[in-house]
Amino acid sequence: MTDYTRIDAYLESHLDESIAELSRLCAQPSVSAQNWGLVETAEMVAEMLRKRGFQASIHPTGGAPVVFAERKGRSDKTLLFYNHYDVQPPEPIELWESPPFEPTLRGGHLYARGVGDDKSPLVSRLFAIDSLLDQDGELPCTVKFVIEGEEETSSVHLKPFVQNNADLLKADACVWEFGTVDFRDVPIQYLGLRGICYVELSVETANQDVHSGLGGSIFPNAAWRLVWALSTLKGPDERIRIPHYYDHVRPPTAREQALLAELPDPAEEYKTRYGLKGFLKGIQGGQELRLAEVYEPTCTICGLTSGYQGPGSKTVLPAKASAKVDFRLVPDQTPEETLRLLRAHLDEQGFSDVQITFLGGEAPATTDPDDPFVKLVVDAAEAPYGVKMQVVPMVGGSGPNHIFKETLHVPIVTAGTGHPGGQTHAPNENIRIDLYLKAARHIARILKEFGR
Amino acid sequence: MTDYTRIDAYLESHLDESIAELSRLCAQPSVSAQNWGLVETAEMVAEMLRKRGFQASIHPTGGAPVVFAERKGRSDKTLLFYNHYDVQPPEPIELWESPPFEPTLRGGHLYARGVGDDKSPLVSRLFAIDSLLDQDGELPCTVKFVIEGEEETSSVHLKPFVQNNADLLKADACVWEFGTVDFRDVPIQYLGLRGICYVELSVETANQDVHSGLGGSIFPNAAWRLVWALSTLKGPDERIRIPHYYDHVRPPTAREQALLAELPDPAEEYKTRYGLKGFLKGIQGGQELRLAEVYEPTCTICGLTSGYQGPGSKTVLPAKASAKVDFRLVPDQTPEETLRLLRAHLDEQGFSDVQITFLGGEAPATTDPDDPFVKLVVDAAEAPYGVKMQVVPMVGGSGPNHIFKETLHVPIVTAGTGHPGGQTHAPNENIRIDLYLKAARHIARILKEFGR
Repeated sequence: MTDYTRIDAYLESHLDESIAELSRLCAQPSVSAQNWGLVETAEMVAEMLRKRGFQASIHPTGGAPVVFAERKGRSDKTLLFYNHYDVQPPEPIELWESPPFEPTLRGGHLYARGVGDDKSPLVSRLFAIDSLLDQDGELPCTVKFVIEGEEETSSVHLKPFVQNNADLLKADACVWEFGTVDFRDVPIQYLGLRGICYVELSVETANQDVHSGLGGSIFPNAAWRLVWALSTLKGPDERIRIPHYYDHVRPPTAREQALLAELPDPAEEYKTRYGLKGFLKGIQGGQELRLAEVYEPTCTICGLTSGYQGPGSKTVLPAKASAKVDFRLVPDQTPEETLRLLRAHLDEQGFSDVQITFLGGEAPATTDPDDPFVKLVVDAAEAPYGVKMQVVPMVGGSGPNHIFKETLHVPIVTAGTGHPGGQTHAPNENIRIDLYLKAARHIARILKEFGR
Repeated sequence: MTDYTRIDAYLESHLDESIAELSRLCAQPSVSAQNWGLVETAEMVAEMLRKRGFQASIHPTGGAPVVFAERKGRSDKTLLFYNHYDVQPPEPIELWESPPFEPTLRGGHLYARGVGDDKSPLVSRLFAIDSLLDQDGELPCTVKFVIEGEEETSSVHLKPFVQNNADLLKADACVWEFGTVDFRDVPIQYLGLRGICYVELSVETANQDVHSGLGGSIFPNAAWRLVWALSTLKGPDERIRIPHYYDHVRPPTAREQALLAELPDPAEEYKTRYGLKGFLKGIQGGQELRLAEVYEPTCTICGLTSGYQGPGSKTVLPAKASAKVDFRLVPDQTPEETLRLLRAHLDEQGFSDVQITFLGGEAPATTDPDDPFVKLVVDAAEAPYGVKMQVVPMVGGSGPNHIFKETLHVPIVTAGTGHPGGQTHAPNENIRIDLYLKAARHIARILKEFGR
C-alpha cells in the first residue's frame, strides 16, 4: 500500500493556488450555446496542460475545437480523461447572488458558471497531477486528456473526432467528466448512462390558423392530429405502444439488480422535492422504484405547442402543432432503431402527416461493475472520502460515453467534485471546497494505483 | 311603395360628412382588452345620438359603460339597434399600412381599427336616421340603441344589463351589430349564431419541471395526462365522445336546409384560401359541407402549451400542461350543460386531475326565417344592393344575440357594412365606401317600412 501522506500534504498546502487557477478558468466565459469565448478557453486549457509538461494540441472540428494532450508516464498503461471546457449559458443573470463569471468564495463554496460542470473536475485532475509530479518527478502512467467544447450543445462533433483519432486516444481506461457524492456525502460510482432519442413531432394542416367558428367541424385541426398521434405512442398504463420498441431491451443482470438494491430508497426524497402524490403504475418505492427509474425505456413529452396560449380565450383553429418527445433508451436500444420504429408506427396508425425531426441521439453504454478498473477506483475513494464508494450500475441521464465505449473499448468510471446542491445548469452553480480537495486526492490515488 | 329618391339623394350628397364623422369616431381609440379610451368613446357616442334628438344615457356596468338612447317615432312600433363602441387591440402595429387610429381613405376604402367592427355600422345607422329626419322631421318608428363597450372581451356585463333593463329595451324587432356581403357582393342575412362553451383544461403533476432523465418512467407527466384526457373527448372519426353531448342537438328544419342549399358551394374557396387538401370525414363539398359546417356541434383544440417550446431540445418532464378548447353549440345545446357533461366525462375517464376553467359561454340563438320582419329586411335590401339578399339560417360564429332573444323575445336580423376583405380583428381593417352608402340606404328603408 502506497503511503499517500506526502501527496495529501501537498494537496492540502497548495489548495489555495489550485482554487486560484480554477477561478481564472471560470472567469473566462466559454458558452457553447452562444459561441462565446470558446477558442480563448481552448487555448487557456492547452496552456494549463503544457505547464504540466503535456504535449497539447488544439483540433478544429467544424465547431468548438477539441483540446488533446498527452504526457508519457512510467508504466505502459494509459489513462484517458474526458472533460469539456464549455459551460451552460448563465441566464437568468438576475438570479445569481454573485456575477456568473466572477468566481466568488462564500461559506466554503466557490460560485461561478461552469465551476462544477465541468471546470473543477478538470482543474482538480491537474492538481492531482501536480502532487504526483512533485513527489516523483514523473507520472505513474501515461495520461491523456480529451477536452471538448460542445458538451452543453450535444457534443455534435465529438463522435467523428473520436472515430478519426482512435489511435491518438488509445487508452486502457477512461475517467468520465463528472462524479458526485449523494445527499449523505457518499461518493457514487456511476457505471452507465441511458441512451436518448430526442425528436420533434409536428403537424401542419392549413396555410393559416382559421376562426374556430368556421372550421371546427369540417377543417383538419393540427392540434387534434398531434394529440391523437401522441396518444398512440403511450397510454395511461405507461406501456409504450410502438411495435418492437421493447425488442432489444436487455433486463438488468442479477449483479446490476443487487447493486441497485444497496442504494437508499429514493421515494420520500422524490415526493418531497417534487411535490408528488405518488409514482406511476402504483409503485410505492424501494427496489421496484429504483428498477423502473433506470431500466425502463421511456417516452416523455417534453413540450407541447399549438395555437393560442395566452390569457383568456381566442377562438382559433390551429394550422400548426408540435411536440418535443424524448425516448430514454436502455441497453441494447439505439436511437436509429427508435426513429425507424416511430416512423413506421405513425405511418401504420394513419399519421403520415406527422413529421419527425431528429434533434439528437446517444446510445446507452455501461461499464461492467466487475471490471478490475472499477474496483481500483472504488477502493481508491475510501481514504479520501472516509466512506465506501457506492456503485450505481446505470443512471437515467444520457451522454456521449458510448462513443468512447464503442471506439476505444475501455471501461469508463466517474470521479469528480459534484454534490447535490451544486446547481448544475442553474443560477448560483457552485462546488464545495472540501469535496474539491477530496476529488483531487481520489484522482491522485487512481493514477498511482493504475500505474503500478 | 315609398319613393326613396329624396332619401337616396340626401345620403349620396351627405356621404362625405358622414365619413368625416365616422373618421372622428375611429380616431378615438376604444380598446376594451386594454381599457383604453372607453369612457371617452361612450361619451362621444352619446353626444352623436343627442345631436339627432335622442335621449341618451350612459350606464355603468362594472366594466365599460353601456350607452342607451331612444327617440320616439310616429308609429307605435319600436326598433332596437345593438352595436358596440369597443374595438380589438391594433397590434401588430407594424403590419398596418397607415396608423390604426388615423383613419385613411385609400382606393375607395376607409382604413382604421374598428372601422368595420363596429363603428361604421353604428354611424351608417345614424346617417340613415339623418336622411329620414331630413325628409320627414320625425322618425317612422321609435328607435332605441343599446351600445356596449365590451363586445371584444366577451360582453361580460351585457346579460345583467339587458335583464335588468328589459322594460327600457322593450322593442318589436332588433337589428344586430353587423351585416355583410359575400364574395359575390350579395348581401347576406344571417339569422342565427351558434353557441359556444370555451374552457381551459389544465393539469399540474409536480411542483416543478423535472429532468427527463430522472422521472420519465416513474413520475406523472402533465403533458401526457393532458394528451390522454383530450384524446377521450374526440377521436379521429370526429365524433365527440362525451356521453349525452348530442342529446339536445336539434337537426335543421327542412326550411333551414332549403335555405342552406341555395348558398354557393364553399368547397373550392375554402381549399384555396386555407391551403387545405380536403375536409374532414371525407366530405367533398356542397350541401354536405354546408350542413356539417354549421349544424354539427364541435370540440376544437384552440391551443396547447406545456414544457419546453423553444428551438432544439431540452430534456424536461413538464409539471404543467394546458389546452384551450372551444365547443361550438347548436340549438338546443347550452354552455352550462356542456360544462357539466365535460366534468362528468373527465371524472368517469379517470381524469379528475384535469381542471376545467370556464372562459366564456353563449347559448345558440336563431330567428325564424319566416318571421315577417325578416321578409321586410330582405325586401328592403333589394333596391340598395341591386340583388336579392340571401338568407342564411345560422353561421358558425357565436355572440350575445341569445341574451336579447331570451329576454326581449324579438326577431333579430343583420344589416351592416361588411365585406370579405374587411380584415376584421386584423391589421388594415377597412370598409368599402360604396357598401357604406348601401348599408345606410338599407337601414333607411328598414326604418321606413317598419314604421308604416
